[in-house]
Amino acid sequence: MSKYWSDAIRELVPYVPGEQPKDQQFIKLNTNESPYPPSPKAVEALQGFDTDRLRLYPDPDASRLKQALADYYGVERNCVFVGNGSDEVLAHTFMAFFRQPQPLLMPEISYSFYDVYCNLYAVEPRHIPLREDFRIALEDYAQPNGGIIFANPNAPTGRAVSLQEIEQLLQRNTESLVVVDEAYVDFGAESAVALTSTYDNVLVVQTFSKSRSLAGLRIGFAIGHPDLIEGLERVKNSFNSYPLDMLAISAGVAAIEDDVYFRETRDRIVATREWTAGELAALGFRVLPSCTNFLFASHRYIEAAELMGYLRTRGLLVRHFSRPQIDNYLRISIGTDDEMRRLVETLEEHPEIVRL
Amino acid sequence: MSKYWSDAIRELVPYVPGEQPKDQQFIKLNTNESPYPPSPKAVEALQGFDTDRLRLYPDPDASRLKQALADYYGVERNCVFVGNGSDEVLAHTFMAFFRQPQPLLMPEISYSFYDVYCNLYAVEPRHIPLREDFRIALEDYAQPNGGIIFANPNAPTGRAVSLQEIEQLLQRNTESLVVVDEAYVDFGAESAVALTSTYDNVLVVQTFSKSRSLAGLRIGFAIGHPDLIEGLERVKNSFNSYPLDMLAISAGVAAIEDDVYFRETRDRIVATREWTAGELAALGFRVLPSCTNFLFASHRYIEAAELMGYLRTRGLLVRHFSRPQIDNYLRISIGTDDEMRRLVETLEEHPEIVRL
Repeated sequence: MSKYWSDAIRELVPYVPGEQPKDQQFIKLNTNESPYPPSPKAVEALQGFDTDRLRLYPDPDASRLKQALADYYGVERNCVFVGNGSDEVLAHTFMAFFRQPQPLLMPEISYSFYDVYCNLYAVEPRHIPLREDFRIALEDYAQPNGGIIFANPNAPTGRAVSLQEIEQLLQRNTESLVVVDEAYVDFGAESAVALTSTYDNVLVVQTFSKSRSLAGLRIGFAIGHPDLIEGLERVKNSFNSYPLDMLAISAGVAAIEDDVYFRETRDRIVATREWTAGELAALGFRVLPSCTNFLFASHRYIEAAELMGYLRTRGLLVRHFSRPQIDNYLRISIGTDDEMRRLVETLEEHPEIVRL
Repeated sequence: MSKYWSDAIRELVPYVPGEQPKDQQFIKLNTNESPYPPSPKAVEALQGFDTDRLRLYPDPDASRLKQALADYYGVERNCVFVGNGSDEVLAHTFMAFFRQPQPLLMPEISYSFYDVYCNLYAVEPRHIPLREDFRIALEDYAQPNGGIIFANPNAPTGRAVSLQEIEQLLQRNTESLVVVDEAYVDFGAESAVALTSTYDNVLVVQTFSKSRSLAGLRIGFAIGHPDLIEGLERVKNSFNSYPLDMLAISAGVAAIEDDVYFRETRDRIVATREWTAGELAALGFRVLPSCTNFLFASHRYIEAAELMGYLRTRGLLVRHFSRPQIDNYLRISIGTDDEMRRLVETLEEHPEIVRL
């Protein structure tokens, strides 16, 4: 604490990301990274990059990356915004759109960074409880608001709402912006990008950190009506002209273009997830249906916090959130087949776990 | 413009960076990049990087880079903050410290992004005129304020204030924070890092984009009292957990460690600057003394805007600012000896320029 801080800084409660251990002894199933390396084409782009050019500033507009995303998603380039990870894109989104007289509606259980942004930008949040089985019911969002944000699929529950439900929300909620955070959409939900050409009140946010295996390079993006993108550009250009470095732009373009590798690794993760879900159920877990690259699971007899500690001592990191309603669940990222076999074997060695 | 924008977004006037032409036909003397490639050790760090690791998130704290900077500057690691270019560091600085009841004091002519941050974070600026010869006189800042920021050396003038003048300011101005933006300090001014261990009311901001030849990788940092760094970390961790990607961290560490290359390229730029200043004077320019990697110069007879256009048609980009007091000046980045010879020759071919 320092007397030179702005008042609001004293009240900030920063986000705490999952642990990134510095040694590599752990099997990391705690931050939803891909277990597979980046596309060989992205690696080629990095290795072939003329490093002499790093003395120059990058393209402040990252036009090549925007164009690659526009081509991939079948939208115009001015419908695409890019940033330093989807966290930065989300931060600018809160600044650009959610500082409104009415509160921002969000699921009570969702990506906990949303509350941190509210705090940072003095946005009042209103938390809408999930329904039974942790389902988001968008009809519960029919109330006065200055904006709506939810993750689809939701984190850490892994559950998704349908495109039809989202479209109905957009038709009802025409006076404020709806933001759909699709960090995990590639693993099994329907993307609302399809709605952005029809509706000017929806912004879709995605990331290269999960299904594109590039968490280490920090690339996120948003797709929406050009007027929404212009709002984001105004904030970005008032904050940092060049948020994406040259190497990230270059590898990002190559990763998007390598659709074959993307589909192959995604399909493998989905298959591993389904196998793991079956095994966990057989070991006495209640496992939520997942459209993501993680499973949200609770054991019938053993407390989640205890299980997390047990796994950690055996070299496996999973994530646990100490908050009401979900404090007896573990969020388990999907690793390789070998890693998930190791998880299952380790759980089986727990003295109180019996295969059903 | 969209009805979904927050009110404040309508009023933003974003920063406009210098042109980054997409072809490489121009000699770029317009954005103060280094004419020399990054350190061979930084290149080696990039080429030897295990790209499989890019599937993982980077260290959110960038500890290796902080430690390398701490070792280099002889401070503790908790006195160092790092960000996605010094622009991001400056943005967080405005958020963390300058939202105060009193106005922020800054030179009337300086880095124009400061006014943009004021706009973004609703900070009231008070502009202090420069003295004769574009000198910053810190005794003019003895007035009620919620913070003080200036660039040293100043941009785009190139002039510096002494460490003694800064120390006197810190002794007078104990109730608010003084931020010294040292983007260009390595080219000839005294760094205020030396004062950060004695004074808790000074924060020094620097960048890898100029003297470290890494504009393309986006690395900036701040050094100050641990309480100031903690304020910045609170903002950063409420905004984006991982602003620096793995490759930037890795190349940044190697660049800082390669002091021999740093000194060699910096000395070469300083020598080229002095030669260029002499030549410009001989061609009828008034050239301000420069402690930076650029020259700020005004021709006695020919208007700056015209000269900029003339140079552009001949493949040379320089920067011109259309604002009172400096609109008859050009800011010319220092390139290689060959590039500066080409500049001088091109100027000599101008029909109204005669060598004195």
